[in-house]
Amino acid sequence: MFITFEGIDGSGKTTQIECLKDFLEQKGYNVITTREPGGTHLSERIRELLLNTDYNIDPITELFLFNASRMHLINTIIKPALKNNIIVISDRFYDSTTAYQGYGRSISLENINKCNDIIKSFGIIPDITLFLDIDIKISEERRSSMEKDRIELSNESFFEKVRAGYLCIADEEPNRIKIINANRDKQSIFEDIKKYILPLLQTSVK
Amino acid sequence: MFITFEGIDGSGKTTQIECLKDFLEQKGYNVITTREPGGTHLSERIRELLLNTDYNIDPITELFLFNASRMHLINTIIKPALKNNIIVISDRFYDSTTAYQGYGRSISLENINKCNDIIKSFGIIPDITLFLDIDIKISEERRSSMEKDRIELSNESFFEKVRAGYLCIADEEPNRIKIINANRDKQSIFEDIKKYILPLLQTSVK
Repeated sequence: MFITFEGIDGSGKTTQIECLKDFLEQKGYNVITTREPGGTHLSERIRELLLNTDYNIDPITELFLFNASRMHLINTIIKPALKNNIIVISDRFYDSTTAYQGYGRSISLENINKCNDIIKSFGIIPDITLFLDIDIKISEERRSSMEKDRIELSNESFFEKVRAGYLCIADEEPNRIKIINANRDKQSIFEDIKKYILPLLQTSVK
Repeated sequence: MFITFEGIDGSGKTTQIECLKDFLEQKGYNVITTREPGGTHLSERIRELLLNTDYNIDPITELFLFNASRMHLINTIIKPALKNNIIVISDRFYDSTTAYQGYGRSISLENINKCNDIIKSFGIIPDITLFLDIDIKISEERRSSMEKDRIELSNESFFEKVRAGYLCIADEEPNRIKIINANRDKQSIFEDIKKYILPLLQTSVK
């Protein structure tokens, strides 16, 4: 099973991914977690380039770099793990590209989809995607205490566009993408996540 | 004017680009030369990743990295130079991707063209492309004296496929792509190059 988490920066993905990993491992499943961009040695080097505040990176260069990082992660980590019946949980996947580079940076969805289609042609599609939907103001408060990378330095209107983008994507694929109200405490959010994951486990191999 | 040079490794592009730059500058034109992958600080960092023999890079990751490097080069160097009536000579451009990643690495041309179409949608298309066509054996002799990067370490049959790919591309766009027999001495090759470039200069602004 391939589970992805989506949401704007500061939506609490990291915390929920840890909870879900612990929960699944306690149930006896093998689980690995990964993140985008990153997750392999090469992809982490690409991540450094993407998030480095010294570079002035245009949206299309950004698009290609995210996809390079993603493809390497798929071939090196995700595909082999899924083959071995390991549950893969990824912090971001191609929906991030559509939301951030498409809706956020205004790259045409036609160009975004050209890249996404290349990735999809290799057959790695999430079984379920959990979109942690948080108010921009609340996420901004959380982010204000952290040192920000190049993308996190974007302004509020950028994150508004990204959030709206996620809602559009979720609307298009309601079977795969579940919207979770992330303006609540950690435990309430996790209860919702379990509600979506548990039925899938019954069909999954331990 | 935007001029690109193509050919397998060891075909003599570097030498001919230097000759052409000197020739054009002596005629009073402003010229800059660049290379792919590379040409900007970020793109040179991407080049390091691409050519590093420590990484096991699959063809699609390679495809996206080449395109990231290209897009950054276009926005940072090529577009601004062309706007200022500077002649740009590039050592490789998107035909390299079609020849190396498409014909050489057997990525479907459909996927290659998705990336090339994104690049082309920004309007940067070479006015002329000079393909230096050399026998694999001769290029291999030249390359054997150099320290090889990850791509240059490929075997002879790989370069045979790349060369065949270049010939297919040239066949499809005979107006833009000129095939030059590069199995000859430096001066004879340059005479052919001048023959193609001189008529274009008459319509170009000094």
